[in-house]
Amino acid sequence: MTEDLKNTIQIPDTVKNRVVIIGGGFAGIEFVRHLPEGFFQVVMFDRHNYHTFQPLLYQVATAGLEPDSIAEPLRKVFEGFKEFYFRLAEVNEIQLQKNKVITSIGELTYDYLIVANGSRTNYFGNQEIYKKAFPLKQIPQALDLRSNILQCMEKAVIVRDPAEKQRLLNFVIVGGGPTGVEVAGALGELKLHILPNDYPELDMSLMKVFLIEGSGRLLAAMSEKSSQKALEYTRKFGVTVILDTVVKSFDGRKAVLSNGEEIPTETLVWAAGVMGNVIPGFQAENIGRGNRLLVNEYNQVNGTENVFALGDIALMSTAENPNGHPMLAPVAQQQGRLLASNLYRLTTGSTMKAFVYNDKGSMATVGRNKAVVDLPGFTFHGFMAWAVWMFVHLFSIAGFRNKVVIFSNWVYHYITFDRGNRLIIRPFIKPYTLDQTQET
Amino acid sequence: MTEDLKNTIQIPDTVKNRVVIIGGGFAGIEFVRHLPEGFFQVVMFDRHNYHTFQPLLYQVATAGLEPDSIAEPLRKVFEGFKEFYFRLAEVNEIQLQKNKVITSIGELTYDYLIVANGSRTNYFGNQEIYKKAFPLKQIPQALDLRSNILQCMEKAVIVRDPAEKQRLLNFVIVGGGPTGVEVAGALGELKLHILPNDYPELDMSLMKVFLIEGSGRLLAAMSEKSSQKALEYTRKFGVTVILDTVVKSFDGRKAVLSNGEEIPTETLVWAAGVMGNVIPGFQAENIGRGNRLLVNEYNQVNGTENVFALGDIALMSTAENPNGHPMLAPVAQQQGRLLASNLYRLTTGSTMKAFVYNDKGSMATVGRNKAVVDLPGFTFHGFMAWAVWMFVHLFSIAGFRNKVVIFSNWVYHYITFDRGNRLIIRPFIKPYTLDQTQET
Repeated sequence: MTEDLKNTIQIPDTVKNRVVIIGGGFAGIEFVRHLPEGFFQVVMFDRHNYHTFQPLLYQVATAGLEPDSIAEPLRKVFEGFKEFYFRLAEVNEIQLQKNKVITSIGELTYDYLIVANGSRTNYFGNQEIYKKAFPLKQIPQALDLRSNILQCMEKAVIVRDPAEKQRLLNFVIVGGGPTGVEVAGALGELKLHILPNDYPELDMSLMKVFLIEGSGRLLAAMSEKSSQKALEYTRKFGVTVILDTVVKSFDGRKAVLSNGEEIPTETLVWAAGVMGNVIPGFQAENIGRGNRLLVNEYNQVNGTENVFALGDIALMSTAENPNGHPMLAPVAQQQGRLLASNLYRLTTGSTMKAFVYNDKGSMATVGRNKAVVDLPGFTFHGFMAWAVWMFVHLFSIAGFRNKVVIFSNWVYHYITFDRGNRLIIRPFIKPYTLDQTQET
Repeated sequence: MTEDLKNTIQIPDTVKNRVVIIGGGFAGIEFVRHLPEGFFQVVMFDRHNYHTFQPLLYQVATAGLEPDSIAEPLRKVFEGFKEFYFRLAEVNEIQLQKNKVITSIGELTYDYLIVANGSRTNYFGNQEIYKKAFPLKQIPQALDLRSNILQCMEKAVIVRDPAEKQRLLNFVIVGGGPTGVEVAGALGELKLHILPNDYPELDMSLMKVFLIEGSGRLLAAMSEKSSQKALEYTRKFGVTVILDTVVKSFDGRKAVLSNGEEIPTETLVWAAGVMGNVIPGFQAENIGRGNRLLVNEYNQVNGTENVFALGDIALMSTAENPNGHPMLAPVAQQQGRLLASNLYRLTTGSTMKAFVYNDKGSMATVGRNKAVVDLPGFTFHGFMAWAVWMFVHLFSIAGFRNKVVIFSNWVYHYITFDRGNRLIIRPFIKPYTLDQTQET
């Protein structure tokens, strides 16, 4: 065996076209699921061995759900799927000229490449915030945040210095999008219903949750009415909402805001933005706004024949969305589904269909009985919105076992006002080691 | 404030007797639960903020249960309990003369001290094994083992060298007690029912599970019949049982047995013994066989008036158990319960009652439909034993939510033969960092 061959990932030879897909997120799994089974050889790379149901990550971070319940092993998702190969690996480089991916476990050539590795937290170049803030894109990050919140409470019990106690009890969330609103609301609920029972020694009125948003309203991508309701609800849960303001710096001990205000805090959750997670190998002209790959209406990366990008990482400029579609699961899923049939069309000589986003609406939850839903031409909020939010999320999550466990948890929370997962399973130790738990 | 006072843990002043208890295990929680509420001031120290239901740890390690379902936050266990104070801290030293404990967060005096911090893995002085083997006493350890098992499978898929592939697929469990038998059985089940679906590319007949026991039989503390059945069952699940043999060394790549055999392996689970987790401050004459604290029939540590030891760490020599009681949850719970009333008796001038262990029997499970149960004068096995095992464990675990989640998981496993928690949430990275996740 030559040295060259040695470095090649072992995948059985086949006369079929080999489709390499990077990422087992919403786009990746919908794409593979809808491929005609056995027609292609499919190789999926992911650095995790599971699919993460990101919309519920904030509940893991706030002690509402166990991490295992919002994840599904990727090998299980595709159990029995013909000619499907999963490889736990990080893709480090794409060699477009050679039709080859270079990964942490070796290299592999492809006939078609599907780039669906999503987005990562955007710190807008602020290295200090990158090192000190809590992102919330992956399960280990959610567990770190959960540990940190509980450790802050435990420390607040024992410190004598009132200023230090206040610092430990201040929680700052940056970014008023769905993640920020949901984390802030969940922390507000913890403060109201759960932590007072756990910490009778602490004066819970000291606990402060701040939600900082750069624009003039929360949930800026939703309707005015929803923004307004979200503001009302978060305030009802005791959250201090600060609009038109950004965080200038965070040194791990205090956040400095653009309005000059300083908030001493141990915990700053960074939900202020995401960007495409582009792997080296693309040309500058392929990369657009938000570090996303420019694609045509078939999700084909500009200037390539056999490379496609799906979901968060793809920027398809349309009349309705000149700056690309919103980075949401439904876009990723719909693109994945369409590309599955388009790839079949392409290889069989038919004409591909252009992608049209079917926007079924969007929603966000703030807490118990409080959510907002925008449907096309119609918006509602409150208990009904909250019930719809829960139903949609329960219905969407992969795996029967996950559905049962999440449903039991939610019924339990609703009846008892309790959250069962208040465990510091691995103490969070500063600083972030910037390994797998961190953005890459 | 003097420097001295500054270092004192803040607990409100009280005219009541202060009972300091180290450890929120089975003994600790039963003890506090049975104290007359409000009669003492109770301060509990634990290095985790949760109680671990250790009998089900092996199911977390083998992808059967989520970690959160076998743990209960200690603050929740004692929610509303009058004059109860929980402190997340490690106790580093006991100053018996000064009635004081020195902890990671400061020091505290006590009127009564209850030592209930259990046992830790006994490596019999072998530093190499301590550094390379997987213990199974805490949840982070179980998660490390789970990650490692799955990472070995993923690596086995990609390596080319047949010897290296075999090494990754060899799993060695040392110690034929309940933990060893349960881990081996669960790995056997994974091999038979779950991994073949996940890894169709692997020849699963290569996966080998070895169970190494130093004595002539498995479950040496149980009846001959149960030992024999356990042997039969583990073999049915494909486990290679090697009796009358010990592991001499393990360098992280191969285990060397006392019979001269060598087993190349990445994974060696050390379930060969535990020892009392004695905190510095006791005299050598207080410490008996197995590093346990010598106590009288009231669990009073020999030579002390106001210091008691409960559960695994206590060695009470009786006619029936000259070397102390078995290190089992029921002993710890019964001692905890009795001491709660004895402490009341002691402080009110009554006579304390001597501890008598009410042995209700013991049991161990090997896998689906296969368990053994010893009741006094009666032993049974097979499906009924397995059903009893499940019922007893489900009934014993703290927390309604845990019961529901575990029950759903078990029903799901039984019907589908699947195990849902095959997630490498935090990759296991060698070597053990010997921090909180490791024995101390």
